[in-house]
Amino acid sequence: MVAAEVRAGAGQPEGTSPAKGKVLLVAGTHGNELNAPWLFDAWQRDPSRRPACDLELVLAIGNPAARAAGRRYLERDLNRSFDPDRLADAGSRELEVDRARQLLADHGPAGADPCLVAFDLHSTTASMGNSLVVYGQRPADLALAAGLQGRLGLPIYLHEADAVQTGYLVERWPCGLVIEVGPVPQGVVQPAILQQTRLALEAALAVLMEARAGQLQLPRQLVLHHHLCSLDLPRHGDGAPRGVIHPRRQGRDWQPLHPGDPLFLSEAGETLAYDPPAGLGLDPVWPVFINEAA
Amino acid sequence: MVAAEVRAGAGQPEGTSPAKGKVLLVAGTHGNELNAPWLFDAWQRDPSRRPACDLELVLAIGNPAARAAGRRYLERDLNRSFDPDRLADAGSRELEVDRARQLLADHGPAGADPCLVAFDLHSTTASMGNSLVVYGQRPADLALAAGLQGRLGLPIYLHEADAVQTGYLVERWPCGLVIEVGPVPQGVVQPAILQQTRLALEAALAVLMEARAGQLQLPRQLVLHHHLCSLDLPRHGDGAPRGVIHPRRQGRDWQPLHPGDPLFLSEAGETLAYDPPAGLGLDPVWPVFINEAA
Repeated sequence: MVAAEVRAGAGQPEGTSPAKGKVLLVAGTHGNELNAPWLFDAWQRDPSRRPACDLELVLAIGNPAARAAGRRYLERDLNRSFDPDRLADAGSRELEVDRARQLLADHGPAGADPCLVAFDLHSTTASMGNSLVVYGQRPADLALAAGLQGRLGLPIYLHEADAVQTGYLVERWPCGLVIEVGPVPQGVVQPAILQQTRLALEAALAVLMEARAGQLQLPRQLVLHHHLCSLDLPRHGDGAPRGVIHPRRQGRDWQPLHPGDPLFLSEAGETLAYDPPAGLGLDPVWPVFINEAA
Repeated sequence: MVAAEVRAGAGQPEGTSPAKGKVLLVAGTHGNELNAPWLFDAWQRDPSRRPACDLELVLAIGNPAARAAGRRYLERDLNRSFDPDRLADAGSRELEVDRARQLLADHGPAGADPCLVAFDLHSTTASMGNSLVVYGQRPADLALAAGLQGRLGLPIYLHEADAVQTGYLVERWPCGLVIEVGPVPQGVVQPAILQQTRLALEAALAVLMEARAGQLQLPRQLVLHHHLCSLDLPRHGDGAPRGVIHPRRQGRDWQPLHPGDPLFLSEAGETLAYDPPAGLGLDPVWPVFINEAA
C-alpha cells in the first residue's frame, strides 16, 4: 500500500469522550495472527495480568474457528465481512459473515452486552512496527489516534475510499481502530510483538480514561498517512509475479519512496524503479504493509 | 529442536558418485513456503536462468494443491508421508499420501522418469540461515553434505531416530537432502531467501558434478549437529502454552545453549532457564528450528 503524509491540526474535536460504555478488545480476527490471542489467554487465566484500567473491558476472539485451523480465515476474511449490506443479506451465510453478525449481536453498540469502542489487535509480516490503522475520518477515531500518537509516537495509516477493500470490523462500532504490529511471521508468537501489542493497548486505554475524565490533552498536530492506492507486484500476462520486493525496500515500511527509487527486483535480477501510477503526483509517498503475506 | 555438535572425519566414503542419473529438485513440499517455487516458475519461463549444470534436472512442485490453497498441507504433512508402510497401505488415501506415491511413480529411483538424487527445498520462520538437513547416516548423503559444507560452510542438522517424526521425502531416493533457508514468514517471498536457496542449490549441483567426474575433494572434517530431542514450550495442564521463546534466544539458531541460559519467558514475565531433559548430559547443546511456525 502507498500512503501520503498529511499533517492536520488535531485540536479538541467534538466526540472525544467515547468511553462512557464498555470497551471491546478483539484478538484473532485473523486466525493465524497469534500474538494478541496469546495475551488474551494469559489474561483469562490470571485477570490480574490485564492492563490496569478502570474501564469495563470485554475480550473476544474474532475468528475462533480460523484460529483453531491456524488459518487467516475459513470462508472469507472476517475483517472484510462487516459491510452493512452484506450483514443484512440473508443469503450471505459464510462462516465469517455469521461470526460478524454474532459479534455485533453480542457486543455491538446495540448488542446484548453493548460496547462503544472497539480495538482490533492485529499482527503483520510487514515491518509496520507498532502502528495504528483508522478507517475513514470519524472525529472520535482521530482523537483517539491523536492521543495515542501523542503518547507513543505511533504512525497512523488512514484507510478510506478504497472500493475493493471494505467491511472492516471497527467501522461497526462508534469508535474504534486497529493496532497493527510487525514484523512477525504468521503462526509465530514473539515476546517483542506481545510487548508492543500490550504497550499500544495500555496507551489506548489510558487515552480513553483521560477522555472520560475530561482530561484528554491532544497534541497540536496529528500526522496521518493517507491511503492512496495498492501497488501490486509486476506480473506476467498470465498473472504470475515477475518480480519481488527489492532488497533495498524490504522492511522499510513508513520510509519515503521517490520516483526512481528501487522498488522491485525482476526474475532476471534487474532493479525496477518506482514509477508513480498515473495521476499520482505526490512525491514522496510512504509505502506500508510491504510484503504482507496476506 | 536441540542438537549436539559432532565432528567426524569425512574422508572419501564409498558411494560418492551418486550423480550418474537425473537429479530431482522439489519445491513447495509445504504449500506455504513460496521461495523455491518462485524460482522454479522463473526458470520454467526462461530456462536460461536455471543454475548452469550439465546434469539432467527434473523440477517438481511437491504439493501443488497445498500451494494453491496457501497452506502447509491439506490432509497431512507431505514431508511425513513417505514411510514405506504407509505408502504400501491401500487404506491410506490422504491427498498427500497419494501425492507421495505419484512423485515416486514419476521420479522415484524405480519410477517412469527415474532420479537418483533428490533435493527438497524448504524455507522456515526460524533463523536457520542457509542450512542442510540430512536424515540418517547414508554415506552418499553425508558425502554430499560434506562437499557443500566444504564449499559454503553450511551447518548440517542430522535428523534420525526420532520415532514420532518419520517419512521424509528425500529418504525414498538413494541420495538426497533438504536445503532449509530462513527466517522468512510463511507466504512471503524475499530476495535474500531466493538468493540463498539458489546459492545452496548451485553448490549442491557443483558437488554432484565433481563427484560424477571423480574429482570431488571432501573436507577433512565434517561438522554435524545431531538431533537429540524436541523441546516444547512450557505448558499449562490443559496444554495451553505458559511461555514463549525468550527474547535472548529468539533468532539464535545454531548458537550454543548451556544449562541455566534464558530459554523461555513466562506469561508472568519470568525468565525460564534451560534445564536439560533427564538423561541429556551434553553441554552445550545447539538449538535449531527455534520458533518455527509449523
